[in-house]
Amino acid sequence: MDEVIADPMGAAIQWYRSKYDGEINWQRMLAGSWILGFPEEHQKMVLDLLYTPGFFRNLRVMEDAVDVLKEMNKYYEIFIVSAAMEFPNSLIEKHDWLMEHFPFFTWKQLALCGDKKLICGDFMIDDHVKNLINFKGKPYMYTSAHNLEVTDYERINNWKEAAGIFLTDDVIKDR
Amino acid sequence: MDEVIADPMGAAIQWYRSKYDGEINWQRMLAGSWILGFPEEHQKMVLDLLYTPGFFRNLRVMEDAVDVLKEMNKYYEIFIVSAAMEFPNSLIEKHDWLMEHFPFFTWKQLALCGDKKLICGDFMIDDHVKNLINFKGKPYMYTSAHNLEVTDYERINNWKEAAGIFLTDDVIKDR
Repeated sequence: MDEVIADPMGAAIQWYRSKYDGEINWQRMLAGSWILGFPEEHQKMVLDLLYTPGFFRNLRVMEDAVDVLKEMNKYYEIFIVSAAMEFPNSLIEKHDWLMEHFPFFTWKQLALCGDKKLICGDFMIDDHVKNLINFKGKPYMYTSAHNLEVTDYERINNWKEAAGIFLTDDVIKDR
Repeated sequence: MDEVIADPMGAAIQWYRSKYDGEINWQRMLAGSWILGFPEEHQKMVLDLLYTPGFFRNLRVMEDAVDVLKEMNKYYEIFIVSAAMEFPNSLIEKHDWLMEHFPFFTWKQLALCGDKKLICGDFMIDDHVKNLINFKGKPYMYTSAHNLEVTDYERINNWKEAAGIFLTDDVIKDR
């Protein structure tokens, strides 16, 4: 969900820039977390932002995610899985956000967990190595500022590319 | 979670009996849902009860579940998985309930989903055929009033029996 169909990093940067003029350091994010891109003295504050009621409810949808997933939903059994349990207040917000922006999904297609180790499927699209590494199906890394240097996975850089993988005539004719 | 480590049916029956003197019909539950055991004219009301804030937060813990799962947690990687998404208000309550009664679990061990089809693991203990039927590991049916006539699964009738399966010296010496 986050960094794949929803944009918490974008929201955090926008919020930060409206309050402070510290620099975002994209290099530091490459350690695996976009929080590290904020000046060290402000990282705790950005983390607190994630616990603020309404934060996850109001996130921007990633470009083309709605159109491509709406089409994919016709040919695949899709589950939206979010490692959301660290932020218990986000649970209902993530449910409401998905139902608003992706009304073609049902509540049966959402899973909010603490660890994606227990998720099985044929494909997983995720922005974190820790989630892809235990997956038994085919993993795809969804490109995000914090994972640009990861080289172990086939990439999906944006949802148009996802359509190119999952929605070509060749692929869907067999489904 | 429900009917396995938490007792919503018990809470619903207690609530119902405090208000009405209709009979609980255990026979009708055998169609697969304990809601069907309430008089037909009151079933909608019982369903509404499940949407009431606080309902899931205040459920009784199933007997011996805490002691046995605390011990199992030393030898197994345990996930508590609940098909809770039908009741979005229950999400935070289920998180808080688990953290209160089972403090040895971390938030990483909880998953709240709409459909258990996407869950993998070595063992699943569940009270519903619809959850066990797609599971690739070994399924166990946790006995509940609504599943007494199901014959397709090995049963766990209570948490002491679970200890007899998962915590014998023979089994845990290899873990």
